[in-house]
Amino acid sequence: MTTRRLRLGMVGGGEGAFIGAVHRIAARLDDQYQLVAGAFSSRAEVAARSGAALHIEPARCYATWQSMAEREAAREDGIDVVAIVTPNHLHVPVARTFLAQGIHVICDKPLGLTLDEGRALADDIARSGCRFVLTHNYSALPMVREARTRVANGELGEIRSVEVEYLQGWLNERVELTDNKQASWRADPALAGAGAAGDIATHAWQLAAFVSGMLPEALRGELLTRVAGRQIDDEVFAEMRYASGARGRLWASQVATGYENDLRLRIVGTRASLAFRQQQPNELTILPHDAPASVVTRNGQGISAEVALACRTPAGHPEGYLEGFAQIYREAAQLIRGEAMPLLPGIADGIAGMQFIARLRQSSEQEGAWVAWA
Amino acid sequence: MTTRRLRLGMVGGGEGAFIGAVHRIAARLDDQYQLVAGAFSSRAEVAARSGAALHIEPARCYATWQSMAEREAAREDGIDVVAIVTPNHLHVPVARTFLAQGIHVICDKPLGLTLDEGRALADDIARSGCRFVLTHNYSALPMVREARTRVANGELGEIRSVEVEYLQGWLNERVELTDNKQASWRADPALAGAGAAGDIATHAWQLAAFVSGMLPEALRGELLTRVAGRQIDDEVFAEMRYASGARGRLWASQVATGYENDLRLRIVGTRASLAFRQQQPNELTILPHDAPASVVTRNGQGISAEVALACRTPAGHPEGYLEGFAQIYREAAQLIRGEAMPLLPGIADGIAGMQFIARLRQSSEQEGAWVAWA
Amino acid sequence: MTTRRLRLGMVGGGEGAFIGAVHRIAARLDDQYQLVAGAFSSRAEVAARSGAALHIEPARCYATWQSMAEREAAREDGIDVVAIVTPNHLHVPVARTFLAQGIHVICDKPLGLTLDEGRALADDIARSGCRFVLTHNYSALPMVREARTRVANGELGEIRSVEVEYLQGWLNERVELTDNKQASWRADPALAGAGAAGDIATHAWQLAAFVSGMLPEALRGELLTRVAGRQIDDEVFAEMRYASGARGRLWASQVATGYENDLRLRIVGTRASLAFRQQQPNELTILPHDAPASVVTRNGQGISAEVALACRTPAGHPEGYLEGFAQIYREAAQLIRGEAMPLLPGIADGIAGMQFIARLRQSSEQEGAWVAWA
Amino acid sequence: MTTRRLRLGMVGGGEGAFIGAVHRIAARLDDQYQLVAGAFSSRAEVAARSGAALHIEPARCYATWQSMAEREAAREDGIDVVAIVTPNHLHVPVARTFLAQGIHVICDKPLGLTLDEGRALADDIARSGCRFVLTHNYSALPMVREARTRVANGELGEIRSVEVEYLQGWLNERVELTDNKQASWRADPALAGAGAAGDIATHAWQLAAFVSGMLPEALRGELLTRVAGRQIDDEVFAEMRYASGARGRLWASQVATGYENDLRLRIVGTRASLAFRQQQPNELTILPHDAPASVVTRNGQGISAEVALACRTPAGHPEGYLEGFAQIYREAAQLIRGEAMPLLPGIADGIAGMQFIARLRQSSEQEGAWVAWA
Repeated sequence: MTTRRLRLGMVGGGEGAFIGAVHRIAARLDDQYQLVAGAFSSRAEVAARSGAALHIEPARCYATWQSMAEREAAREDGIDVVAIVTPNHLHVPVARTFLAQGIHVICDKPLGLTLDEGRALADDIARSGCRFVLTHNYSALPMVREARTRVANGELGEIRSVEVEYLQGWLNERVELTDNKQASWRADPALAGAGAAGDIATHAWQLAAFVSGMLPEALRGELLTRVAGRQIDDEVFAEMRYASGARGRLWASQVATGYENDLRLRIVGTRASLAFRQQQPNELTILPHDAPASVVTRNGQGISAEVALACRTPAGHPEGYLEGFAQIYREAAQLIRGEAMPLLPGIADGIAGMQFIARLRQSSEQEGAWVAWA
Repeated sequence: MTTRRLRLGMVGGGEGAFIGAVHRIAARLDDQYQLVAGAFSSRAEVAARSGAALHIEPARCYATWQSMAEREAAREDGIDVVAIVTPNHLHVPVARTFLAQGIHVICDKPLGLTLDEGRALADDIARSGCRFVLTHNYSALPMVREARTRVANGELGEIRSVEVEYLQGWLNERVELTDNKQASWRADPALAGAGAAGDIATHAWQLAAFVSGMLPEALRGELLTRVAGRQIDDEVFAEMRYASGARGRLWASQVATGYENDLRLRIVGTRASLAFRQQQPNELTILPHDAPASVVTRNGQGISAEVALACRTPAGHPEGYLEGFAQIYREAAQLIRGEAMPLLPGIADGIAGMQFIARLRQSSEQEGAWVAWA
Repeated sequence: MTTRRLRLGMVGGGEGAFIGAVHRIAARLDDQYQLVAGAFSSRAEVAARSGAALHIEPARCYATWQSMAEREAAREDGIDVVAIVTPNHLHVPVARTFLAQGIHVICDKPLGLTLDEGRALADDIARSGCRFVLTHNYSALPMVREARTRVANGELGEIRSVEVEYLQGWLNERVELTDNKQASWRADPALAGAGAAGDIATHAWQLAAFVSGMLPEALRGELLTRVAGRQIDDEVFAEMRYASGARGRLWASQVATGYENDLRLRIVGTRASLAFRQQQPNELTILPHDAPASVVTRNGQGISAEVALACRTPAGHPEGYLEGFAQIYREAAQLIRGEAMPLLPGIADGIAGMQFIARLRQSSEQEGAWVAWA
Repeated sequence: MTTRRLRLGMVGGGEGAFIGAVHRIAARLDDQYQLVAGAFSSRAEVAARSGAALHIEPARCYATWQSMAEREAAREDGIDVVAIVTPNHLHVPVARTFLAQGIHVICDKPLGLTLDEGRALADDIARSGCRFVLTHNYSALPMVREARTRVANGELGEIRSVEVEYLQGWLNERVELTDNKQASWRADPALAGAGAAGDIATHAWQLAAFVSGMLPEALRGELLTRVAGRQIDDEVFAEMRYASGARGRLWASQVATGYENDLRLRIVGTRASLAFRQQQPNELTILPHDAPASVVTRNGQGISAEVALACRTPAGHPEGYLEGFAQIYREAAQLIRGEAMPLLPGIADGIAGMQFIARLRQSSEQEGAWVAWA
């Protein structure tokens, strides 16, 4: 039996937006959604033009997300799910509004501005009976899933160290003063909440937790602003201690000159280590204690059966960023249709991200002292 | 002004097909098409089930491509363009049938079975006034385009050598005897025409010609069948001489044990060389005579402006096989809408591929003697 | 005019020793030394057999380093310089004894067991008028020198971060309980002083300081023993703050499963970053803000003139560990003959290493608190 | 019992020579030789100055190699072995002269100028009872030995293809017209015999034969001169057919712009393939049919026992070009002392190299026709 496509709405993502376009491609890739409504911009003209370009009928191009939630909920053919791709400060308010109307939510990361806000949202989700998916897309890459499976299977033995870094260089200068739309809201604390900490360190944090299966007992570190005049953090260092005795380190920077989008994860275990680099997403390196290193490839020899399901192309036909993102959408559709999708990032990941930023700020304000995670 | 989506039909690509699914993703990715009709399989039940899974209305799920062409042409809302994703022997017959109805064609490679067939098709295309696009997808990868631009700009100086190889290992055993659908038709000369020569060597050939801007004066080489009992070539070696004095070599194998889909191109020039590897599609290595090697990245520093247009994500957010394929579809839509798209592969590339196979067979039958290209 | 070879003696390095053999190869490589005397082992039979294998005349194979120092000093053709390749606890006592006889010293790292010991040695060196070289061999690799030159020239702009790591996995189990000679003394605190901290973290520390040109204002971190039952640290994490505001991190582990000898250095500057990996010692990657990454090669295009002097072979003919070590010996010969050799590691590096261990221990004992460097 | 060092003489290798210095380092590295005599240059002053710099006593610095052979043979402490590091045209005459005096020979490659010359030398060697070693140094690299062992053990199954290439760019312009000593004799047919064919293609040829264990039945190809005005070949393409049905290709170029010394070998077998690159000599990649690719490292996990003997340093401590060369010298010493050293390249490799050039010339003169190897 054929299932119908889910009806998708979008808040944010008007002309010139980056992540809105990514969400739309991700939603289209596996053909599980049709985009039928949107509040694409707070500027009416932009919203209309964006909607038209996206083939949305004018009646479903809304001036505000509030009216969109209300009117879509009232339609028989109203949206099943909304994608929230606004700046961070709106994530939670928009999500709560749609949840209140019984509409599922797929939300860009980070969850929002504060831990309290995240907890309030968690309550709403629980009450709503709706699904909430947070697009920590990197955790949906097949070789990240493969890494997780191998850790979980015990192939690495006990974990000694978790080492994650996420390096970008694009905020190396104050591009937020130019007309770079991506940079300008990200550098505004009122809209972004946090800088590198929210934008990329939460990805690194979630990735480390996802693959290692662990959250720490304690955390320390600092938030730094490296570019003079900038109003927000652009680099983050953190250190973690886990209950098992394992150690962790995280480095996230948007001022790492010359780096593009270099998210790397290494896990050292007592029996083997592993290394993953997002910029080569079709490979996972396994370093055993007693055998040569091997390079496991997406859909290649030796890959776990469940991971192969997250692939669209045979080995050697590279998948990348968009396919990882699409995997989130594919699984979100399955979730909304009632399947259990335990690997999908959701509210717990979002709260963990907010908690990470909060704890790191505490530590940073205390000269890098250790703070308990809980 | 918003342009409507093109109405797309598909011939082939029913349940279990590989390349049909790729074409559909490619068509969806940039949202320029809607799939509205299909003759997905010669088996009625499969055709119906496939159409339903793809949300095609039953009336437009056709039992034969002949009836599809006729009836779609008769509809006011009939398809604008058909994607042909059948085994090779049907490419030309199907294409001619749709062209005869004034329907544009996007056809999988290789063009067909013979050079004569290709030339007849060329005539039909010319008569039809329709557009014909051949999905030599690798030539649409941004870093391949970058390579081409740099050759054309003279950055490499004069070309000395063109070195291309395309290595796969998946036909290392007679998987065509198993229920591997991909292998079984590819190993049948009646359906495929040629083996490795058609399936992958034509890609390598087209890539070399696309980037270097050259076709050879003469050619030699051999077609080999390495796996005992196989009915078709599974490995190809060729050598080329160009009018300029440049040399070329091509190696394509589907029995290169352990290789996945390793298409590589190197061009040596008098001032610089370049190297590209499909499995790392976001990078292009430039080796100048008098400076260190540099690694140019997709959408990164130093990339040509026109190439940046073929990217969907910022540098460091890997694009891959599907995005390259989608670029063909994106540009095909522009072509169909009336733009000149000089980089799109079409009938000339298809004929060159057929000619390459024909010349190589001639040479192979003459102990590898040189044969004129023309 | 031809200079005679320097007469070299050796303390330690008898049969089965690793680093002694390395020193001897290093001394031979550029033919500036002849090994003429030794106290190769505290076990007389081993000493004699080792000396014979090395073509040392029996009269100059000494039972103790004390007698060696005394009698070599008394000979007209006595040694010019002694190489100390014993376990760490003997470095300083042996060095002081030879310095007291006016004999130059080339000493393996780390300097010794304690900071006090190091300072006492510094006084002795100053009094002796002799030269003291510490074999931090990695800082003599051509591409490390190239990295230093580029930092010094300002090519990176101001330094933001220094990231160094040194990962080995060979002590992943308690190999010190087997007959592994290398492991057994290294795991004995009385002989080694420190474990990973002394054996490899001092290399990483020196490398970071050498290339960046900076020592920190403050330091924090911890020494860990990861393998149960082990008597010494086998992993080290440290963090550094520099007066300029730059940050640093160091990770050294001998229990990083599957890693061989993976010493890596990255420096992020405001205008460019650089990356070096000891296991690919013929390459240095430069990542500029506004141009593609380039890979500078040893003796290749764009290398600094002074660095080319540290190469023995043309570009593309790999040099490695032994050549780097030999560079220390080559420059030590020049130093002993009276040239200024500012890049050679010596007593200051040794003391810095002892200070690093001491500060790290302090911090480690205080839950990782920041401690002043000075 | 200690064996004495072998007494080594050298012909060629005076001031400014490249390969002479390499041979001397190689001879010193493992301390099996002492250089005691030489005819370093045909120019008396250069010879004397070179000898002095090398600490050779003046009486053993000879004006001609003829006098050196005669007088060293007459001394009780005369040289055991001579290293020939002259331009190619002198290799055979010098070797024959020393062999006639009962002196062993270590000779740089290629063997000489012609196949006939090589065969005559073979007769002399047989008559002399002396040892003759040809420094095809790349075949002594540990990971090349590892590759050979794995082929011989059947790990690859039957060989399908042998693919070797050796790319340099340093003769991209007519540097032979400058004062580049290396280029000037190499570009002179009277001194070099062949250009790229002799200088580097013979290395590639020998490497392929060494690892694969096969010589072809037939051969075709061409010698090219790419740089206008040059008097000698600077690029070579060849193709091979083996009795087993296996195919081979060889590409050697000294005008491959931007390449340094890029010797690569790939062998495709029915069960696995392997890949080796000289510029990363500490690694060997194995690509099995049914498991992920693995990267075997020098002295690392999974290395063959006999190969470990060819290593001087632990895994992760890179060895390179000089160590490979030294391995030839180490094994030559063992050979001279009476051990069987079956892996050492010698006269058979030299003759094969001459034969390769002769056959390739034949083919090249016949438009690339196939010529029988025998």
